[in-house]
Amino acid sequence: MERIRTKIESDVYNSNCPTRQVLDRIGDKWTALIIGLLEEGPQRFSALQRNIGGISQKMLTQTLRNLERDGLVNRVLYAEVPPRVEYTLTPLGETLCTPLAVIRNWAEEHIEEISAAQTAYDAP
Amino acid sequence: MERIRTKIESDVYNSNCPTRQVLDRIGDKWTALIIGLLEEGPQRFSALQRNIGGISQKMLTQTLRNLERDGLVNRVLYAEVPPRVEYTLTPLGETLCTPLAVIRNWAEEHIEEISAAQTAYDAP
Repeated sequence: MERIRTKIESDVYNSNCPTRQVLDRIGDKWTALIIGLLEEGPQRFSALQRNIGGISQKMLTQTLRNLERDGLVNRVLYAEVPPRVEYTLTPLGETLCTPLAVIRNWAEEHIEEISAAQTAYDAP
Repeated sequence: MERIRTKIESDVYNSNCPTRQVLDRIGDKWTALIIGLLEEGPQRFSALQRNIGGISQKMLTQTLRNLERDGLVNRVLYAEVPPRVEYTLTPLGETLCTPLAVIRNWAEEHIEEISAAQTAYDAP
């Protein structure tokens, strides 16, 4: 009798594994920057856009929608006049804060070494 | 007299800061997968390609070249017949292993929660 596989092991190295898509999403720089801001507390769309240099309205909208769909971010609508919308981290989203902070900090701490390597590589 | 700024503080939230580009590079899924394999030891191009499902030859070539330029990966040529090329992590590249392993593991550990959130979001 054939053995029934009840659980497939996750493997980011397998292109058919859904974890690959997740890796792509959380590795995205906009995700890392948005989650870093939401870590400080709920934020309105306009505040996120103002604080993330260079992000377009379209890109911010799309990234927030993906994060909401992934269960990492909540979109909270307050029935005020005019209506107020705030974005917050879900408990799942909060578990990503530390890993992404480590990545952002790595980039800031090692930029001089990387710039020096690039200059050396590009030298004729 | 005007104060001379001798050092500009790194800020990934500033689109003009070079750390932004670095964040983009290290967040890339191919980077995370390549560095994860090189952590185990030197690898030949063919082994990398075989172990990373879905990566094209062109994408692997380009990503390795970027990682070499950033000073994260060494390309070592052995003067044998036929010549052998291996890729290894530099000491700088090794400092990225743990942060990226945390990200890969997060993806593998939380995939079920994310899939459930996506299903709920997409439900009519």
